[in-house]
Amino acid sequence: MKQAIKEIQHELGEDSISTDDEDLRIHGYSEWSSINIERLPVAVVFPKSTEQVATIARICHRYHVPMIPYSGGSSVEGNVSTPFGGISVDFLNMGNIVAFHPEDMDVVVQPSVSWMELNETIKDSGLFFPVDPGPPAKIGGMIATNCSGTNAVRYGTMKDWVINLTVVLADGKIIKTRQRPRKSSAGYNLNGLFTGSEGTLGFVTEATLKLARLPEETGVAVTTFPTMRDAANAATQVIRQGIPVGAVEILDDVQMDVINKMGATGREWKKLPTLFFKFSGTKVGVQDNIDGVREIVSQNKGGNFEVEKDKVKQQILWAARKEALWSMLCMRESGHEVWSTDVAVPISRLPDLVGSTEISKKDLEQLGLFGSMLGHVGDGNFHETILFDGAKERDKVGNCVHEMVYRAIEMEGTCTGEHGIGLGKKDFLEKEVGEGSISVMRAIKLSLDPLWLMNPGKVFDF
Amino acid sequence: MKQAIKEIQHELGEDSISTDDEDLRIHGYSEWSSINIERLPVAVVFPKSTEQVATIARICHRYHVPMIPYSGGSSVEGNVSTPFGGISVDFLNMGNIVAFHPEDMDVVVQPSVSWMELNETIKDSGLFFPVDPGPPAKIGGMIATNCSGTNAVRYGTMKDWVINLTVVLADGKIIKTRQRPRKSSAGYNLNGLFTGSEGTLGFVTEATLKLARLPEETGVAVTTFPTMRDAANAATQVIRQGIPVGAVEILDDVQMDVINKMGATGREWKKLPTLFFKFSGTKVGVQDNIDGVREIVSQNKGGNFEVEKDKVKQQILWAARKEALWSMLCMRESGHEVWSTDVAVPISRLPDLVGSTEISKKDLEQLGLFGSMLGHVGDGNFHETILFDGAKERDKVGNCVHEMVYRAIEMEGTCTGEHGIGLGKKDFLEKEVGEGSISVMRAIKLSLDPLWLMNPGKVFDF
Repeated sequence: MKQAIKEIQHELGEDSISTDDEDLRIHGYSEWSSINIERLPVAVVFPKSTEQVATIARICHRYHVPMIPYSGGSSVEGNVSTPFGGISVDFLNMGNIVAFHPEDMDVVVQPSVSWMELNETIKDSGLFFPVDPGPPAKIGGMIATNCSGTNAVRYGTMKDWVINLTVVLADGKIIKTRQRPRKSSAGYNLNGLFTGSEGTLGFVTEATLKLARLPEETGVAVTTFPTMRDAANAATQVIRQGIPVGAVEILDDVQMDVINKMGATGREWKKLPTLFFKFSGTKVGVQDNIDGVREIVSQNKGGNFEVEKDKVKQQILWAARKEALWSMLCMRESGHEVWSTDVAVPISRLPDLVGSTEISKKDLEQLGLFGSMLGHVGDGNFHETILFDGAKERDKVGNCVHEMVYRAIEMEGTCTGEHGIGLGKKDFLEKEVGEGSISVMRAIKLSLDPLWLMNPGKVFDF
Repeated sequence: MKQAIKEIQHELGEDSISTDDEDLRIHGYSEWSSINIERLPVAVVFPKSTEQVATIARICHRYHVPMIPYSGGSSVEGNVSTPFGGISVDFLNMGNIVAFHPEDMDVVVQPSVSWMELNETIKDSGLFFPVDPGPPAKIGGMIATNCSGTNAVRYGTMKDWVINLTVVLADGKIIKTRQRPRKSSAGYNLNGLFTGSEGTLGFVTEATLKLARLPEETGVAVTTFPTMRDAANAATQVIRQGIPVGAVEILDDVQMDVINKMGATGREWKKLPTLFFKFSGTKVGVQDNIDGVREIVSQNKGGNFEVEKDKVKQQILWAARKEALWSMLCMRESGHEVWSTDVAVPISRLPDLVGSTEISKKDLEQLGLFGSMLGHVGDGNFHETILFDGAKERDKVGNCVHEMVYRAIEMEGTCTGEHGIGLGKKDFLEKEVGEGSISVMRAIKLSLDPLWLMNPGKVFDF
């Protein structure tokens, strides 16, 4: 291990690697994460190019040192933790837009590009990158977890936006999965394989991503419902009717109350289950979609259908959705932790999942725990966030979360819609897809990383 | 080999397997294909269930017999040919819709379900399956080649519609890639890996597919241009402006003339480069999109913008696009062959590709060959179809086709947008993605099929 660090220092320069305690802690521990472990990385290295990443991989491969890719560090299932120690490879110095091709509607980026900054940079071109996870997320991690966000119901998930990837394999070989066609049937879909593999198959060091056209017109609508089940029913009906909403998000009464308490939006919301809609398209199209949604909402006990098309006022209305997680985090008592989890089910099962989750919220209350619910409801994707005293309440919270995950799997759903497996959900993955599918994943992993050096301990075990 | 056939007969019944000469010829040779070889399969087996497929695989695995999955048989790159002999596994008896979940907008199907019959069966539900390759295509082969069609510009390709796959691996193990969530980040994306792997990694024996909402309103428009370059410019501008057309297809003057000569559409078309558009959405949305396209067309030298919203008249207008390939095939002299190939390039390069292809059409004429061009122009996907006397002209045609494929690769494109690699494009694949990516594909192949029994000789070589 020491020899590996020495060689990396020799090849990349003294400054390229850190063994500073604080650096190790930041890279091995995350307050975002539902799971943290004692062990930290032995060093953090900061490559500046694909070639430097290849050098790191060659050296680590020679000395059998685990390698853990790191970009935004905001994943929530321990995806960047270091259960076997090793070297955390932070892409901090690889945050450039390498090429922008507005005429082809694509952009070439390094792993530490922030999706928000990317959109800020290219906004005058009339194009944008539509995948919108949490603000701290960066492209590398977004590819690793096949992330998504509120826009997924309209624009799909990360895997749908990858045109090609430059990947450094465990032994330091560099490959590029494709050239730049938006559509291809040439050979195995390596984009689809590396996207979502959580850094266990190689380092993504560059990506070409599709871009979408910024809509001419946008709109936001908010409406409340007597119960979560009513809200979920309305949302799934909108999807089944094929209305191309930009987003449809569900927030429970607890979540709305938290937003009020934290006062982040400058207005008082009803403490009721609430749906937030985004609309986008042409002027005519947006109005048309709003009319369609309004009708479904009114048929499903929805009240106070509030619509905004003015740009500034839209942002104010959407602010409640945007501030949801932050408001929850602000509620956290000093020293307490947050457990955020997500599942996804076939859309017809969403009202049941939401309904049964309301029941389990009563369990939460009885256990003296504080949790809220929120969902990208158009995809059947649902999140639960619980605040707790880590020292005392971890097991209780774990049981509540696990119960929801099992319920989702029993409903033919998945243990994670967009967060990934990381350290935290390995058991659920096996329950969900079976030992047969895990063996296939394991065979693929072994074929590309026989020494099991890339992000070991994640997704599934050896 | 004989022992394997005997055991399959014993396990599945006498009628399950055929060694009839005509059966062998049908499964080893295809008049659709740009490439055919002498060798035929030794037998054709007709399983009735996933379990029977697993039995076949176990037996073939034991005796090292190549296995070649077969459904529609309409692929064009020798994808179902049998260069190493072996057993063709025809899913003829697995053509059922297993389950239909309109409330979840998905359907569970066996490999020999025809996408056209599927849509006919479910049309009253208000849902449809939007991937639209050639009419003879069946789901199994559609998954194998990651096919698409005219709807891809709006709805994406096959990989975007797969929720889960049941796969029989080379050794007979059965896996199911996922349950039924429309969105998931759980583990490696095996859907994305098996889709497009051309049956080289296993048999897909069942698939759950997403469905889309049938649009309330549809429309068709047709317009002509002085040159192919003008037409391509107009099409790419429509895409860059983000107008969500249902389809945009380019046909060259030769193709339009062929349609006239064959008289398949009951009207006379101008012998000019022509764009065909489909529109779909709400009444208001369709009109809005038509207005947007009309404006772009008129700015790009487009003439005679003809629009239809009446259901029956739309079909008549679209008929020219629909009959394009069939009209070409009717032009074929007795004993002559057809070579149909496809490439895709970044959209800004499409006018160049189309322009340079027009030049190469002059080469075609000088060589005395007859070819037409047609493209799913919104994705940068372009097809060339050449009729020729196989005995005399194969080499000449091969050179013309290969030149276009190399040109597309030089433009950062792909050697196939939707047909796959099969036997015919293995050299191009390596040129396109490089030996590094091929090694990764080979490692994956070896990890799942170490004896190289699944559809050997396709996509890449050992």
